[in-house]
Amino acid sequence: MSTPTVTRVQMAYARIEAVNRPELWIDLRPQEAVEAEARLIDERLAAGENLPLAGRLLAAKGNIDVQGLPTTAGCPAYASTPEADAPVIARLRTAGAIVLGTTNLDQFATGLVGTRSPYGAVRNAHDPARVSGGSSSGSAVAVALGIVDLALGTDTAGSGRVPAAFNGIVGLKPTRGLVPATGVVPACASLDCVTVFARTLPEAEQALAHMASPPARDLPPLPQRAPGPWRVAVASPSQLGELDEGWADAYEAAVAQLVTAGAEVRTIDLTPFTEAAAMLYQGAFVAERYTAVGSFIDKLITEGGDGLDPTVAGIITRARDIPAHQLFADQDRLAALRTRALAELADADALVLPTAPGHPTLAEVADDPLGANARLGRFTNSTNLFDQAAVAVPAGEVNGLPFGVMLIGPAFTDERLARIAALLQPETRVAVVGAHLSGQPLNPQLLALGARLDRTTATAPVYRLHALATDPPKPGLVHVGAGGSAIEAEVWRLSAEGLGRLLTALPRPMALGSVELADGTHVPGFLCEPTALKGATDITKYGGWRAYVTAPH
Amino acid sequence: MSTPTVTRVQMAYARIEAVNRPELWIDLRPQEAVEAEARLIDERLAAGENLPLAGRLLAAKGNIDVQGLPTTAGCPAYASTPEADAPVIARLRTAGAIVLGTTNLDQFATGLVGTRSPYGAVRNAHDPARVSGGSSSGSAVAVALGIVDLALGTDTAGSGRVPAAFNGIVGLKPTRGLVPATGVVPACASLDCVTVFARTLPEAEQALAHMASPPARDLPPLPQRAPGPWRVAVASPSQLGELDEGWADAYEAAVAQLVTAGAEVRTIDLTPFTEAAAMLYQGAFVAERYTAVGSFIDKLITEGGDGLDPTVAGIITRARDIPAHQLFADQDRLAALRTRALAELADADALVLPTAPGHPTLAEVADDPLGANARLGRFTNSTNLFDQAAVAVPAGEVNGLPFGVMLIGPAFTDERLARIAALLQPETRVAVVGAHLSGQPLNPQLLALGARLDRTTATAPVYRLHALATDPPKPGLVHVGAGGSAIEAEVWRLSAEGLGRLLTALPRPMALGSVELADGTHVPGFLCEPTALKGATDITKYGGWRAYVTAPH
Repeated sequence: MSTPTVTRVQMAYARIEAVNRPELWIDLRPQEAVEAEARLIDERLAAGENLPLAGRLLAAKGNIDVQGLPTTAGCPAYASTPEADAPVIARLRTAGAIVLGTTNLDQFATGLVGTRSPYGAVRNAHDPARVSGGSSSGSAVAVALGIVDLALGTDTAGSGRVPAAFNGIVGLKPTRGLVPATGVVPACASLDCVTVFARTLPEAEQALAHMASPPARDLPPLPQRAPGPWRVAVASPSQLGELDEGWADAYEAAVAQLVTAGAEVRTIDLTPFTEAAAMLYQGAFVAERYTAVGSFIDKLITEGGDGLDPTVAGIITRARDIPAHQLFADQDRLAALRTRALAELADADALVLPTAPGHPTLAEVADDPLGANARLGRFTNSTNLFDQAAVAVPAGEVNGLPFGVMLIGPAFTDERLARIAALLQPETRVAVVGAHLSGQPLNPQLLALGARLDRTTATAPVYRLHALATDPPKPGLVHVGAGGSAIEAEVWRLSAEGLGRLLTALPRPMALGSVELADGTHVPGFLCEPTALKGATDITKYGGWRAYVTAPH
Repeated sequence: MSTPTVTRVQMAYARIEAVNRPELWIDLRPQEAVEAEARLIDERLAAGENLPLAGRLLAAKGNIDVQGLPTTAGCPAYASTPEADAPVIARLRTAGAIVLGTTNLDQFATGLVGTRSPYGAVRNAHDPARVSGGSSSGSAVAVALGIVDLALGTDTAGSGRVPAAFNGIVGLKPTRGLVPATGVVPACASLDCVTVFARTLPEAEQALAHMASPPARDLPPLPQRAPGPWRVAVASPSQLGELDEGWADAYEAAVAQLVTAGAEVRTIDLTPFTEAAAMLYQGAFVAERYTAVGSFIDKLITEGGDGLDPTVAGIITRARDIPAHQLFADQDRLAALRTRALAELADADALVLPTAPGHPTLAEVADDPLGANARLGRFTNSTNLFDQAAVAVPAGEVNGLPFGVMLIGPAFTDERLARIAALLQPETRVAVVGAHLSGQPLNPQLLALGARLDRTTATAPVYRLHALATDPPKPGLVHVGAGGSAIEAEVWRLSAEGLGRLLTALPRPMALGSVELADGTHVPGFLCEPTALKGATDITKYGGWRAYVTAPH
């Protein structure tokens, strides 16, 4: 017998088969075992248990411990099978999520490309000739292809954000310390943090809430922010450096969308950010990767180096001889750059940047493995060095491929960044014909959801309008085709999340469905259930609800 | 004409001559210039200016910029003459302090002994055969010998505390960041802080208040402390390791003094502190000294190495090849030790330790320069690594030489530590015979000063007691020798500071002077001015004030 979650699992395995991207996974659990777990979840739900993430399918980057699956960090010889889940995995499982398996990554989380793995280069979800981005490559693509709902990544230089941008999904890089990194193979232990991918911001935020630790006792209070519009920092085009074709316009459009939503924009000096970014691999900080796995790699090389990615091994072994006195000098210089960066952001709630400067093909990365990778971190590398939080979200498309921007803010402003990022989410529309029209009793519901009036129009002449016997009085819009009339309508813009919340709060006998407008387009809009028409009065002749309610009758 | 401050300067230069310790100074300012500055201070005072540190004589460790004097860091070839005072110097001068000169130090502040300098080994203030302690050697001895009132040091491993202990003075090592380190030659830039020496805790605290920066905007609020006795953490004798003869007893006595003063004691595990202490020179952290001055030393060695201390040069040049990956590992290990240390102190307001485990002779240090030095930092080295504050205070003598203890607490508990340390200051006594007796109207004044009743006794039979015409009524104790009687008295214990405050608040015609007790000892006690006896009644026959005021009359 298939329960809902079991069905969901079956669909996921069918999707895995259909997409034919074997490189996504390092270890995929047997379908039977996952189905058995899904059945248990459904039984617990049926028993009344509260499982907020019940049935959410989850993938874990291959450097995060999942009980019973080898943790490889992308290197077969490094594999060891943990006896316990990493706390982040355990917390999501406790809330009802189901792990499908571990995903491919740039070996030892060293890369932003997604090609540095003996398990194969991970191809982009939307264009298999382009890179997935890395290092959390398999996790991002598994979410983007609709296989799983949630996937965990890690982020040191941008590994939780660059693949989100390249695959058109959301990536949350929380403040370091908010989410435990226990049970994760370190890349740079002092900079790493666990990240979450999802297709929408609310889904990612919900997962993050379950992953986060209770606030530490000495957590500093978040600086109070005076009420007022969001203050968004942006970079001048010249400081962004060379971007892929069309990306500067896409960035400008995203900023314009924030302005439309009420944000104030100020242009800052990006220099401290890009100078710090350059230090991550060019300076002494890369030595921390040797601290983590250097002696393992040295030993593996003496044994033949089987399964080592040559680019990754080269980066890490070259870091062996960087002197400590240079690291102290770099830490000093970084502290000075951080002071400058914080000063630039003193009057801003968030810095908005393209997540990456461009999206290379697999061939371009193969031609210049180090150069192509270094370019990708131009905007992301400084975030963890500066101890900041970041949210990467889709922001439209360029030439049919996803474009993404990133909001960066001070430590522990994670929620604030997500609220600003929500302004960038794709908007949808809703057509209203009755109590939600401007000035009518339920219009405040729309305003509370952040909706803004798009235009006043009318339906196509294929509807009849009925006054329903509801309280407050509402009209029922009924599609009749021939014999119908054009009915006055307003189209409101709001987020998909807002539309979903409107629907969730909708009482019988109202309904939302596709409404045809006078210009022939269709938008979601107010309809009603058939039963609503019992005892209702046809008021089509008034031409709209507003005319009806103001007429003498 | 000699004004008060000029006289003070003249006495200081006479004292410099008298003590014959030329090794204290690297650059002593000409007496005439200092006298001229002193005369200006007195003129400004006479003009009504507010100069809280007017006329305080100050010495600066030779690694702190003093305008017009070469900053050497103890290395003649390193000398350069700054155009401005370091902010700490400037702030003390603004408050009226007068700099006499720059003092000798362990070269590049690398040492805890005070012998590592081409300007000569600094001899201890109390025993010239023993070391001064370092690296702030000259500053500490100049204070201990009464030449200056205040001296600045720096503290990376314990350089502001070990010499305080060895010379019987107070050394405040503030929380890092509280006092600017600008204009100071770095030893380990991420650990250094400027410290202050004085002969008493209030003097040191007053100077520190002028040196400290206004709180940073994001200063975390100090965790609230529930009311109740001070909770003091101590180490078990076995964990203290080998101490000099008599030092364990002296430590125990200091702890007992805190208990007598009402503190609660708990024994903690000292292991994380001593393990971190060992890392400061044995691990990768020493590489930060190469970052600061390594290339200068390398160059100087190629030019012959003139004026380089061989021990210091050896330590710093050996640090050149420490790899960065080891530093990352050490930073990780340190973070874990810090977590353990903070957990040990979770239920304590302060950790009390001997400031050093022992006090070597110059000969012992010459025999084993590295070993003798390493031993001295056993208790101090971890403080800056753990980002803690510390106060070093005298705590009696052992075999005629000073013994000192140190209170260590979390960052920004500097004031709290000083309050606890004040309990260790030498106590004094005061004899009261009238309105300050237990139960009498002014007794609460004593209690508010932290005084505790020592015993009830009587004066020697050489006094007469008069009822003065004061409000409230008070007795006047008058020494007459023969013809006197024993008068009821209470002896109260309080700090010298408390006694001073009692005196400061004393109204005419009362006075404090030496009072002879029944057992023949003398203690400070209440007397009165001669004029007070006008209109007073001789009440000696009552045997004491209490009997007089309760008698019918």
